[in-house]
Amino acid sequence: MSDSTTTIADLKDRVRTFVDERDWQRFHTPKNLAMSVAIEAAELMEVFQWVESADAPARAEDQRTALEDEMADVCCYLLSLANAAGVDLSAAVQRKLQKNAAKYPAAEYRGRFE
Amino acid sequence: MSDSTTTIADLKDRVRTFVDERDWQRFHTPKNLAMSVAIEAAELMEVFQWVESADAPARAEDQRTALEDEMADVCCYLLSLANAAGVDLSAAVQRKLQKNAAKYPAAEYRGRFE
Amino acid sequence: MSDSTTTIADLKDRVRTFVDERDWQRFHTPKNLAMSVAIEAAELMEVFQWVESADAPARAEDQRTALEDEMADVCCYLLSLANAAGVDLSAAVQRKLQKNAAKYPAAEYRGRFE
Amino acid sequence: MSDSTTTIADLKDRVRTFVDERDWQRFHTPKNLAMSVAIEAAELMEVFQWVESADAPARAEDQRTALEDEMADVCCYLLSLANAAGVDLSAAVQRKLQKNAAKYPAAEYRGRFE
Repeated sequence: MSDSTTTIADLKDRVRTFVDERDWQRFHTPKNLAMSVAIEAAELMEVFQWVESADAPARAEDQRTALEDEMADVCCYLLSLANAAGVDLSAAVQRKLQKNAAKYPAAEYRGRFE
Repeated sequence: MSDSTTTIADLKDRVRTFVDERDWQRFHTPKNLAMSVAIEAAELMEVFQWVESADAPARAEDQRTALEDEMADVCCYLLSLANAAGVDLSAAVQRKLQKNAAKYPAAEYRGRFE
Repeated sequence: MSDSTTTIADLKDRVRTFVDERDWQRFHTPKNLAMSVAIEAAELMEVFQWVESADAPARAEDQRTALEDEMADVCCYLLSLANAAGVDLSAAVQRKLQKNAAKYPAAEYRGRFE
Repeated sequence: MSDSTTTIADLKDRVRTFVDERDWQRFHTPKNLAMSVAIEAAELMEVFQWVESADAPARAEDQRTALEDEMADVCCYLLSLANAAGVDLSAAVQRKLQKNAAKYPAAEYRGRFE
């Protein structure tokens, strides 16, 4: 299983199955899932908290697992929210990138963002 | 473009292209991207902040766009972090779901999580 | 020591002493402290994450300590940031409440906030 | 009004008055306030997001106001949570600093934290 062959729908199905097998849907309200995304995002950030170099955890072997696990947690809750709220994430990303491209034209914002 | 036909690698490529076209890689250190994921996750949570019902924003038409846009923002920064740190997100999610399945056996945790 | 007799400066001094005794000032850059405030705020939120009633943790004895400890953590990092950045927190709160009072006149916003 | 003469109880009273004048207590459940602390903490972090130097916003005049306003927002919601949940914040901070002092003895952790 890898990013080049796995669709968003595949991942959504895996997360849905995990939740369904445990009857956790009733806890997984959109509001609670949004909180969970934020909580896991803070744990992801914590991996980078006191490091000297901004990309250290991406290189250090012992932090690599922590990094990938926290990224997976954020991803799972985001996908569970997409399931619960009936959101097509790919379409949402595509639309948002188009909005951002209009807001930040490449010619004007090359190497700067304000 | 929809979740059933879009691979994670497709989305990663779209985000990478957006970043490359603006020469924003040097701002996109893993640490900064982890912060961005957390900031966007808080904005996503804000959509649900003062609502009466926990799933209201998923239903109200005027909040639907805000919800999808904020989910897209979290997703884009998470994918950009996966690009910057060389993480296969599908593999990470699969491994984390297996860890969680071992930690929370379905038979034992049906309808409860503690 | 209680809220009615403790000044903000008292608390700031206690936090500064704790940091100084460990030579932790060099880790406590404003950026890192802002990240720490956000990380601890997420842990505070986690206390309320899966509860049925929105004020449960404030009542349940066993969660009371967790609640107070996480609130203290947010407070300590906020005070350490005030120390590091030379911010008078009382003055900042007073100014912000005045701005908010102008933005949300009591007569107009009674019982509603939008 | 300054940190050296303002007690925590003074600030709590100011926040309580602001909330009471608008009948906002019913929105200010502990869970919602914990979410608000996290949301404002993310906005505080955003001030430091893309800066080159970790203490830049503490120095730049134009970002100084943003920094102080966001710190005030975090503080106000934390104090409102203390009001709503009946927490003595000074006592909580004192207890937590004692726990941390036991966990991180100064002699052992000078200049390091792990």
